[in-house]
Amino acid sequence: MVAEQWLSDSRTVVDGWIRDDIAAMEALPGSVEEVMAYALTAGGKRLRPQLMLAAAEYVSVDWEALRPAVLAVEYLHTYSLIHDDLPAMDDDELRRGKPTAHIAFGEAQAILAGDALLTEAFFKMAALSPGFAPERVIRASRRLALAAGREGLVRGQVLDLAAEYQTVDVQQLERIHRLKTGALFSAALSLPAILAGDREAEELLSAFGEHFGLAFQMVDDMLNVIGDAQTLGKATGTDANRGKATYPRLMGLEAVRQLVDEHCRAALALVDPERGEHLAALLAFARDRSW
Amino acid sequence: MVAEQWLSDSRTVVDGWIRDDIAAMEALPGSVEEVMAYALTAGGKRLRPQLMLAAAEYVSVDWEALRPAVLAVEYLHTYSLIHDDLPAMDDDELRRGKPTAHIAFGEAQAILAGDALLTEAFFKMAALSPGFAPERVIRASRRLALAAGREGLVRGQVLDLAAEYQTVDVQQLERIHRLKTGALFSAALSLPAILAGDREAEELLSAFGEHFGLAFQMVDDMLNVIGDAQTLGKATGTDANRGKATYPRLMGLEAVRQLVDEHCRAALALVDPERGEHLAALLAFARDRSW
Repeated sequence: MVAEQWLSDSRTVVDGWIRDDIAAMEALPGSVEEVMAYALTAGGKRLRPQLMLAAAEYVSVDWEALRPAVLAVEYLHTYSLIHDDLPAMDDDELRRGKPTAHIAFGEAQAILAGDALLTEAFFKMAALSPGFAPERVIRASRRLALAAGREGLVRGQVLDLAAEYQTVDVQQLERIHRLKTGALFSAALSLPAILAGDREAEELLSAFGEHFGLAFQMVDDMLNVIGDAQTLGKATGTDANRGKATYPRLMGLEAVRQLVDEHCRAALALVDPERGEHLAALLAFARDRSW
Repeated sequence: MVAEQWLSDSRTVVDGWIRDDIAAMEALPGSVEEVMAYALTAGGKRLRPQLMLAAAEYVSVDWEALRPAVLAVEYLHTYSLIHDDLPAMDDDELRRGKPTAHIAFGEAQAILAGDALLTEAFFKMAALSPGFAPERVIRASRRLALAAGREGLVRGQVLDLAAEYQTVDVQQLERIHRLKTGALFSAALSLPAILAGDREAEELLSAFGEHFGLAFQMVDDMLNVIGDAQTLGKATGTDANRGKATYPRLMGLEAVRQLVDEHCRAALALVDPERGEHLAALLAFARDRSW
């Protein structure tokens, strides 16, 4: 099938870029680069990078030109996972079937690897110039920082941690996920459009990313209830054990399934079907995945 | 005295900028902004910002135009202090006479506030455009990321932590301090020159920053031996208790004093005495300080 081929090809490209970039660092034993490399190659789905490549096609941007932005987003995402897994945060020992960074290398190294990945993300963003007009590169960097910082991802994690001790309703849960997951998906998708200088596509793709992120998170919550630990590479039932608010818990599995479908429909309605063919393929993949 | 007036005035300006910026955030109780504000107003010396203002004069850049870069550097510095103080790192409970962020707000909030400050630093850098030519803004942002990341500040902290369990000689100690302290001083000083498009001044000020950073760190080490805990706002003798390698321990106080003087002389020799009047005043202040 054509879509499956594209999913496989785009993933191969992204994995190659990450491998090349790690090879260019000196990942000596005991170095922070070793921890960065470990986390970057720990079996991530590469969904954000793939979405960016699909968005690049949507606005006719060359994949290769986008490489620094793709790496920036994946590095930023990886930093957020490392820090979220820390004992003081979600205290997770396993991710994608492998020990989390602080289990494998100790807490100090994990914190520092996260810091280095976050910093490297903005170093990479600067490398988009001179490939793209510098004004656009600055706007793109600003958009990424906004999505990642105190009004985006970080705030989502703060609210998520606070919610563990509180009664949370669906509206509050959605707000957390918009910040914690939606913001980065949305920014990732909008970057190719910002770099292409296409304001209309920027809005569309940004909104597509919001819906994608929410649907993705709901599927994640469902898999924590009904998924298979081995396929997922992490323990299931952990949300319930922690008394964590999740979509299935608040509204039941069937209602969540419907909501996922609604977000998928809303996302698809935004984009031109032909230009957005691979965006649709990624959406279907994220919805139907079992891991 | 004129220099003292300038030191006081520049500090007032910087404190005002930080106060204004905090007021523009919503620092609600329980928010990450509350922790950011706490750390940003915990009595920092503001040496990096002041050096940037002196460097701005050196290359005839308006202070106000530089505001986002000054905030970026101080936020980045503050993030590094918060993360360095964490239990998994240096495990410090007191800084500048106040409880460190993780003591006051818990570890999770401290980690997240550090992450938010680091991210905000790059958000601020993007705000330097359109005040400065976008190519220069990108170069400045790249310079800051390089100094902060895996080849700068983060590597310095990795080596510093590793050194606690090893025998370290003066060369290794200098390497740690070049990365941990020198890199950010050097980048901070070079930013005004990069933004002014003055390559010659960029090199001079960058080298000035290296010497300044090393001298500053040596004075810090000396104060940990001979300083007054109350004046310093932190415990003294902690380096020795931890078996940490420091300049006084490796070469004796008198030799360190001479080395500080050498770095100060080398720094001063780089800059034009008239244009660099306030750079010299800051150097003297850093050398002779008792806190």
